[in-house]
Amino acid sequence: MSRLWSDLTHTLSPYVPGEQPRIPGLIKLNTNESPLGPSPKALAAIAAAAAESLRLYPDPEATELRKTLAAYHGLTPDQVFVGNGSDEVLAHAFAALLKHDAPLLFPDISYSFYPVYCRLYGIEAQTVPLDEAFNIRVADYRRRAGAIILPNPNAPTGVALPLADIETLLSDHPDIPVVIDEAYVDFGADTAIPLIAKHDNLLVVRTFSKSRALAGLRVGYALAHPDLIAALTRVKDSFNSYPLGRPAQAGAIASVQDEAYFRETLATITATRTRMVEGLTALGFETLPSSANFVFTKHPEHSGAALAPALRERAILVRRWDAPRIGDWLRITVGTEAQTDSLLAALAQIAG
Amino acid sequence: MSRLWSDLTHTLSPYVPGEQPRIPGLIKLNTNESPLGPSPKALAAIAAAAAESLRLYPDPEATELRKTLAAYHGLTPDQVFVGNGSDEVLAHAFAALLKHDAPLLFPDISYSFYPVYCRLYGIEAQTVPLDEAFNIRVADYRRRAGAIILPNPNAPTGVALPLADIETLLSDHPDIPVVIDEAYVDFGADTAIPLIAKHDNLLVVRTFSKSRALAGLRVGYALAHPDLIAALTRVKDSFNSYPLGRPAQAGAIASVQDEAYFRETLATITATRTRMVEGLTALGFETLPSSANFVFTKHPEHSGAALAPALRERAILVRRWDAPRIGDWLRITVGTEAQTDSLLAALAQIAG
Repeated sequence: MSRLWSDLTHTLSPYVPGEQPRIPGLIKLNTNESPLGPSPKALAAIAAAAAESLRLYPDPEATELRKTLAAYHGLTPDQVFVGNGSDEVLAHAFAALLKHDAPLLFPDISYSFYPVYCRLYGIEAQTVPLDEAFNIRVADYRRRAGAIILPNPNAPTGVALPLADIETLLSDHPDIPVVIDEAYVDFGADTAIPLIAKHDNLLVVRTFSKSRALAGLRVGYALAHPDLIAALTRVKDSFNSYPLGRPAQAGAIASVQDEAYFRETLATITATRTRMVEGLTALGFETLPSSANFVFTKHPEHSGAALAPALRERAILVRRWDAPRIGDWLRITVGTEAQTDSLLAALAQIAG
Repeated sequence: MSRLWSDLTHTLSPYVPGEQPRIPGLIKLNTNESPLGPSPKALAAIAAAAAESLRLYPDPEATELRKTLAAYHGLTPDQVFVGNGSDEVLAHAFAALLKHDAPLLFPDISYSFYPVYCRLYGIEAQTVPLDEAFNIRVADYRRRAGAIILPNPNAPTGVALPLADIETLLSDHPDIPVVIDEAYVDFGADTAIPLIAKHDNLLVVRTFSKSRALAGLRVGYALAHPDLIAALTRVKDSFNSYPLGRPAQAGAIASVQDEAYFRETLATITATRTRMVEGLTALGFETLPSSANFVFTKHPEHSGAALAPALRERAILVRRWDAPRIGDWLRITVGTEAQTDSLLAALAQIAG
């Protein structure tokens, strides 16, 4: 603590990301990275951006990237906002759109960065409990609210919310911002993007870090009515004019243009997920239905607090939270076929 | 204006960066980019980062880059903070360190992003006028203050503040944060870094965008006592855990390691600056003594409002502000030898 800090600094409780240890041979199933690499076309575009032109600032408006994303999703460029990873996009959304007199609502079990943003921006928050089966019940959001944010599929559960429920949520709350955080949507949930045309209060947030295997590049985006995008742009241009460097813009454009590779890697990951869930079930694990690139699972006889360190001893990293309701559960990323074999073999040793 | 925005969003007046038009053959002397490319070793490192490993998150703490910068500046890694360009570093510094009950002081003519940050974070600001010759007078800062920020050399004037004056400022204000924004320091001013050992209230901010010719990569950093760095880290980890992607971290490390190229390009740019100032003087221009990679200049008979568009007609872009005291002045980036010839020839036509 320092006499020189702003008051705000003393009050913060920063987000703690999954650990990124550099241990050779480690099987890293703790941060939901893709087991497959990025599109080779994206890599080529990034390498090509390593040029003399790096002396020049990037396009502060990322016009080409926004055009590419707009065309891909059937929207217009003024409906697209891009940022330095979806965490930056979310941060700007919290500041620009989610601070109101009534509380911001989000699920009690959800992305653990949301309460951190609330403290950063002084936003009053209220959590809404998931039901017994860890489902979001949109009827429970029928209460006084300044805004709503939820991930679909939810994290760390992986459970998807049907599109009809999101429509209900939007119809129930036509005059407050509703943010759907679709970090994992490509792995099996229905996107809310088609609802943007009908609902000017809907903001959909996306990332290149998961399904596009570009966590190391830092690109995220948001899609919405131009009025909501304008709010994000005002905050962004009061913070940092150039959040995306030239390599990031070039790589993201090339990734979106390589649809064949994208589809192929999604098919591989979802097939591995099916086999992983079957293997876990055979070992007595209970696993929530996953629409993400991870599963949320627990064993009736072995606590999460015992399983996570036992896996770590075998050089397998998974994620676990010491939090109410989910302390016994593990979140495990879908890895390669070989990593999945190693995981199931290790769990058979520990819990079999 | 939208019913869905946070109150804050309505109050913002975003920063307007220098334009980045994509006109072939344009001589771009408006955003202080380096006329020379980045270190070839930096480019090679960025290209090498365009690899399968981009599927993985970058090191959220940028440990290797912070170690490299610490060693380069004779500090320890806990005295180094890195961010997505120095604008992001400055934004976090405003939030973490510069909001107090007493006003933040900065020069009346200075980096025009400072008042934008103040509005974003609700910081009360007071500007302190430069003297008649556009010098900062540190005695004028002897007043009630919550914090102080100033660029050295100042922007857009290019005028350097002697190190003895910065020491006086720090001694006058031992109990409030003092930020020295050294975006342009490598082009001829004295750095305040040696003062960090004696003054725990000093934060020095740096960028890779100017002297390291990496504006397109987005890397900036701050150096200070570990307590000040801890404040920036708390805010950063409440905003975005991973601001620097893998290509940015790798390119920045390689750039710092290529000292020979760095020294060579600085010598070229400062030599061109000398010739540029001589040429301007021969044309009747009055130019402030520049310690930056740009000059601030005016002609007694031709207003800035007339000169800037006349240069633009000749495909030469410079920067000008419609602001009190400096409306007649032009800020012109030091370009290549050939660009400087073209600039001087154009000005000879217009004002000769």
